[in-house]
Amino acid sequence: MQHHWVRFRHQGLECFGTLEGDRVRVWHGNMFEYPQRGDRTLAVEDVRLLMPVRPSKVIALWNNFKALGDKLQLSAPAEPLYLLKTPNSYLDPAGTIRHPGGGAKVVFEGELGVVIGRTAKQVREQDAMEHVLGFTCANDVTVADILHRDASFPQWVRAKGFDTFCPIGPAVATGLDPAKLRVRTLLNGEVRQDYPVSDMRFSVAQLVSLISQDMTLLPGDVILCGTSIGVGSMKPGSTVEVEIPGVGRLSNHFA
Amino acid sequence: MQHHWVRFRHQGLECFGTLEGDRVRVWHGNMFEYPQRGDRTLAVEDVRLLMPVRPSKVIALWNNFKALGDKLQLSAPAEPLYLLKTPNSYLDPAGTIRHPGGGAKVVFEGELGVVIGRTAKQVREQDAMEHVLGFTCANDVTVADILHRDASFPQWVRAKGFDTFCPIGPAVATGLDPAKLRVRTLLNGEVRQDYPVSDMRFSVAQLVSLISQDMTLLPGDVILCGTSIGVGSMKPGSTVEVEIPGVGRLSNHFA
Repeated sequence: MQHHWVRFRHQGLECFGTLEGDRVRVWHGNMFEYPQRGDRTLAVEDVRLLMPVRPSKVIALWNNFKALGDKLQLSAPAEPLYLLKTPNSYLDPAGTIRHPGGGAKVVFEGELGVVIGRTAKQVREQDAMEHVLGFTCANDVTVADILHRDASFPQWVRAKGFDTFCPIGPAVATGLDPAKLRVRTLLNGEVRQDYPVSDMRFSVAQLVSLISQDMTLLPGDVILCGTSIGVGSMKPGSTVEVEIPGVGRLSNHFA
Repeated sequence: MQHHWVRFRHQGLECFGTLEGDRVRVWHGNMFEYPQRGDRTLAVEDVRLLMPVRPSKVIALWNNFKALGDKLQLSAPAEPLYLLKTPNSYLDPAGTIRHPGGGAKVVFEGELGVVIGRTAKQVREQDAMEHVLGFTCANDVTVADILHRDASFPQWVRAKGFDTFCPIGPAVATGLDPAKLRVRTLLNGEVRQDYPVSDMRFSVAQLVSLISQDMTLLPGDVILCGTSIGVGSMKPGSTVEVEIPGVGRLSNHFA
């Protein structure tokens, strides 16, 4: 069964459910464990969509696409290279990405997000997909000029950790083959990134398996798979969209 | 009023309170907002101490002590350099630190933890201490051999992010001047680190103020101030203790 899971606020309550065209079906219980399909549907325009999950952590990959690695003359890493996004960077699907001020150069990075559905601890590659609920869209927003300004310590966590720098959503799509997906990023309606997920150095199953050797992944945790060519800077007043056909379109204003 | 705040489990319930010698006084409400002192006390030995707070994030400083920086010939950074500890690394005060296997070289790093008490967003240095609840002990456990084995991407988050690699506690001590504190680390009863907090490159007030320019700090968030000389590796079967006189002693078995 293919679903597009969402979380939303309606009349002051936090709920979850599934998208059905321009309506949301309300479900009950726990999204990850025996969710109960309800009878009620609401117009999408009458609810406020939230991040589709509440992650304990969001892991972000670096140098995971061959095309970008080749362009930057980076060799293929022997193992997944990653950092963490800060919880204060999490942003609801229609939230506004805030410029941190001070003339910082802020760049978008459209990415595929892998949402964990079942606790994963030292899982084998062939079992990894059983621990994945589905896929979502994410923007791994970054202050480019902070990253390497201290030669002794690349500031990955900080450059990517400002408030509102991790919009995720709007939905978690299930039942898809990630290798067939494409990630597109549009800046003010113009396509700036358009790359195939099949170009990843480490596949989704490899990422889940390898990262789970180091740390337990919990339901709702998100792995951002890294970005590819076309990363660019944004000016305040822009609209940035990350679209993954079959998964959804994440649209955020930048102010 | 000086307190040693703790969280604990008793008869299946999570509670919080204050240490009074070998007893715990039970408080009610919210530790950060109008906590209500109760009448009841329990023997410490009858409760299970938990991490004293539930952080949304734990930020860990690098190269923040002059003595260690000088030894490693690191120049003074222009700004605080930091990473995030993973939530799966958080460990209760008496929890067991687990070796990740595979012959990894695991090192202890005894550190002062600064616990945020009030939301801090772009606070000035002179106001920063009003946002600090108090201080605690922490061990920033690290797999040393992972850190620099990929030349293109230092793996700070991963090396420090294994399950159980961030014991914190047992208490958050209030009403202390951090500049007067010393951090001692004992391995199997032998003193391996003993350094003054006054040797920090960035003071507690500077850390809170500067980091809050980038990201909102929430009540319960913890800043690990970095470590100094004496870091060393641990063998399974060891007991490692981080002791900060006036704050507490964090004792963990390593297996």
